[in-house]
Amino acid sequence: MSAVRTINIGLCGLGTVGQGVWKHFGRMRPELESRLGARIVLRRAAVRSLSKARGVRVAASKLTGDAMAVATDPEIHIVCELIGGTGIAREVTLAALSRGKIVVSANKALICAHGAEIFAAARRNGGHFLFEASVAGGIPLIKAVREGLVANRFPRIYGILNGTCNYILTKMEELDAPYPVVLREAKRLGYAEREESLDVEGWDTAHKASILAWLAHGVWIRPEQMIVEGIERITPADFRNAAALGYGVKLLAIITRDFSTDQISVRVHPTLLRRDSVLARVSGVFNAISVTGDVVGTTLYIGRGAGQDATASAVISDIADAVALLLHGKGAHFMGEEEPPALGGAVMVPPERIRGRHYVRLTVADRPGVLARVATVMAKNRISIASVIQSPSELAGAASLVLTTHESDERSMRAALRALARLGSVREAPLHLRIGDLGD
Amino acid sequence: MSAVRTINIGLCGLGTVGQGVWKHFGRMRPELESRLGARIVLRRAAVRSLSKARGVRVAASKLTGDAMAVATDPEIHIVCELIGGTGIAREVTLAALSRGKIVVSANKALICAHGAEIFAAARRNGGHFLFEASVAGGIPLIKAVREGLVANRFPRIYGILNGTCNYILTKMEELDAPYPVVLREAKRLGYAEREESLDVEGWDTAHKASILAWLAHGVWIRPEQMIVEGIERITPADFRNAAALGYGVKLLAIITRDFSTDQISVRVHPTLLRRDSVLARVSGVFNAISVTGDVVGTTLYIGRGAGQDATASAVISDIADAVALLLHGKGAHFMGEEEPPALGGAVMVPPERIRGRHYVRLTVADRPGVLARVATVMAKNRISIASVIQSPSELAGAASLVLTTHESDERSMRAALRALARLGSVREAPLHLRIGDLGD
Repeated sequence: MSAVRTINIGLCGLGTVGQGVWKHFGRMRPELESRLGARIVLRRAAVRSLSKARGVRVAASKLTGDAMAVATDPEIHIVCELIGGTGIAREVTLAALSRGKIVVSANKALICAHGAEIFAAARRNGGHFLFEASVAGGIPLIKAVREGLVANRFPRIYGILNGTCNYILTKMEELDAPYPVVLREAKRLGYAEREESLDVEGWDTAHKASILAWLAHGVWIRPEQMIVEGIERITPADFRNAAALGYGVKLLAIITRDFSTDQISVRVHPTLLRRDSVLARVSGVFNAISVTGDVVGTTLYIGRGAGQDATASAVISDIADAVALLLHGKGAHFMGEEEPPALGGAVMVPPERIRGRHYVRLTVADRPGVLARVATVMAKNRISIASVIQSPSELAGAASLVLTTHESDERSMRAALRALARLGSVREAPLHLRIGDLGD
Repeated sequence: MSAVRTINIGLCGLGTVGQGVWKHFGRMRPELESRLGARIVLRRAAVRSLSKARGVRVAASKLTGDAMAVATDPEIHIVCELIGGTGIAREVTLAALSRGKIVVSANKALICAHGAEIFAAARRNGGHFLFEASVAGGIPLIKAVREGLVANRFPRIYGILNGTCNYILTKMEELDAPYPVVLREAKRLGYAEREESLDVEGWDTAHKASILAWLAHGVWIRPEQMIVEGIERITPADFRNAAALGYGVKLLAIITRDFSTDQISVRVHPTLLRRDSVLARVSGVFNAISVTGDVVGTTLYIGRGAGQDATASAVISDIADAVALLLHGKGAHFMGEEEPPALGGAVMVPPERIRGRHYVRLTVADRPGVLARVATVMAKNRISIASVIQSPSELAGAASLVLTTHESDERSMRAALRALARLGSVREAPLHLRIGDLGD
C-alpha cells in the first residue's frame, strides 16, 4: 500500500468566488478526500490586500500579496485563477501552465481573449486548463457538451447566459418598470455590478458564446466578429408589445451550424421568444441553455449562472477533476486542453447575411401618411411586413408603431433601419429586436 | 512516438439501442478516434437470432449468437451490455468485470437489483462499470450528479424519469381522453411497450430513483421499500380538478434527505405540481430532473429520456469515457465503481411517516349527509381538509367529491382511505394523488 498522496491547491484571488471556494471546499473536504483517495490542502491564497476583512477566516500565514508566487510555487499542484480580467490573470495562468500545473479558471473574458494561447501553453508543457465555472456558473454545461454529449454534432446551442440581464428583463416585465429604475434596484441588491456595461451591453454573454462555439465547433470567434447587442434600449412598452404578439423578451446567445452548407454563426441579442417555450419562462438570475445534438435531440440545462455559491460549486468540481487527473491520469479530460473537433471546411456566416424575423418599434409623428412612408422604406429594402400595431406614444403628438417582419437578412434590415431613422416623421432612433424561431 | 493503440468494443444485444449505437458510433468514429487518439473498433456483436433482418448492416463475420463469448473474448476491452433484463445480462456483466474489462450498460433493472454485486465485482477485479444511459436517456445526468456537482450534498432530487408515462399523462390532459384510449394509441405509435406494466405502474421510474439515490447518498434502496404508485387509475376528471386547483399531474420520482435529522426518503407516485412550474410544463416523451445541491442551489435537466438515438448518445459517451480511461487512467471516474459518499448515520424514513398534502377523489352517492360522513372520517384520522370540489359524476345518481388536505402523514392518509372505501355511500375505491410542494 502506498502512502496517501497530498495535493496542494493555491488560490489566486480571494474575492467573492475565492471566498466561496474556500468556504465550501473546507466543508466538503473530508468527503472529497475520501472519494478521491488523497489529502487535499488549500495551501496558499494570494490577495490584493493582506489586511482586508473577509467573510472567511484564513490564517495569516497562508496569505500572500504575490499571485505569481502562488502560481510558480513548486509545492502547489493546482492553481485556481480567480482574479478576473486579462492582465495579471493571464500572466498567472501562463506561468502555472508553463510549469505543467493544472489551472482552474472562471475567467470567461480571459479565455475568450487568450484561449488559443492558454491551451497552446497547456499542451506544450503538459499542464491542464479547466474552466467549468466560466460558462453558466453552477450548471455543469461544459462537461455536458464536452463529455456527456460527445456522440453529437451541434446544429444549435442557444440560451440565457447572463443572470444580471435576465434579472433586469424579468423585473421590467413584472413591474412594467423602465430600464434605469430596475438597473438601480439590481445594483442595490447586488444583482448588477457598479460598472454594468459588460453585462447589459451583451459582452459577458458574447464571451461565453465564444467559449461554447469553440467547444462545439473548434473555432475561436471573437465578440468583434459577432452581432452583439444589449438590453439598454428596451422599454416596458416592448414587453407589452411582445406579449400582445405572443412573445417574451430574453437576451440570448445563439450559436448555429448548418452541416449541409457548413456555415456557422454566433450572435448575442435581445430576442422575442414564444411565451410558451421553457426558456421564455426562466426568470430572475437563472441561466438556461438549450443544446441540440444531432443524435440526442434537444437537451435543456437550467440553474444559477453566477454568484458566490454556484460558481464555487463549479470551481470545486474542476478541482476534483484535477485531483483525479493528478492521481490517476487524464481520464475523460481528453478535450480540456486539446483541440475540439476542428471546424473542418466550415465558414462563419458574415453577420450581415444572417436571416431571421424582426421587431421594430418606431416613435413617429402622429399624422396621416407616416405609415405609408415607413412601409415604403421597408418595401424598398425588400422587407415584407408581417404585422403592425399602432398605439399612443408617451411623447406628445407622437404615436408608437410596432412592426414585425417576415424573414429577411441583417443587411437589408440595417439599411431599412438607417433609412427609417432619416425619415422626418420618425422621432427617435428605431428600436430593433429579433424574433427567435427557435422552438425548445 | 508510440504506435496508435486499438481499443476493441463488443456489443451484447443488437436490438433498438444496440443498432443505434452501431449506427451513430460508425458515423462519429473518425471524430472520436481523432479526439481520443486511438483506433476504436466495434469488433463483435452478440445477437439472439443470426438471421434476423436489422436496420443496420453488420458483416456476418462480426455476429455471434453467444453473448458470453463476447464478454469473455480476451481481445475485447469494452463490453456494452444491451440485452436487458436480469438473467443473461447479469452473467455477461459479471463475466466481463471479473476479467477486468469495462462494461457499459443501459440496464436500470439490472443495476437496481444487482448493483451492489456488480460494483463489488468491478472493484475486486479492476474492471469498471459505466451506466450513463440507465437514467434519463440522453441527458448526461449521472455525470452531472457524480462529477459536475461533486461539491454538493443533495437535499432533494426529483423529476420525470419515464417518457411513456409522461406521454400518456400529457395526451390524457390535452385530449381529455381516458387512460385506456391513450395507452392504446401510445402502443400503436411505439411510445409504450406491448407489456406496459413496468412503465405505467411506476417500476421503471423506481429503478431509476434507486440508482439516483445510490449516487447521491450511497445506499441501495429497493423499489419494495418505497412507495411506488402508477398512473393507471388517473382519469381525465383528475386533470380538470387539478387544473381548477392550479396544478398539473406528473409521475415523479422524489428523493429527499434531511441533513439535520439525516433521514432519507425515496418514492414514486403521480404528483400534483403547480402549473407554473417548469416541470409541470414538460410534455410528451421528455424527461426532466430537478437536482438541488446545498451549494449550487437547484439545477434542472430536460431531454429525451428514451429511444434509440438518445440512449445511443449516452452509451457512446460512456464508450468515449471508457476509451479515455483505458488510454490515460481513471481520471474523473473516481466514483463509477467506487462507493459514493456513505450514507453515514442516515436512516430511511419509513414510508408511512412521509408527510405531505393529498388529493382524494371519491365517487359518492348523491344524497344529503355524505360530505358530513366523509369529513368525519378525515377528522377521526386527524387529517385537515383544505378544499372540497363537488361535481356531477359520470355514474348515475352519484357525485364526484374532490378533497385536498393540509399536511398529514402517509399512515393517517392510508387509514382514512381504508375507512372511506368502507363507507356505504362511497361507490368506487378512492383515487388518491399526492400534492408536490416542490418549487422548481
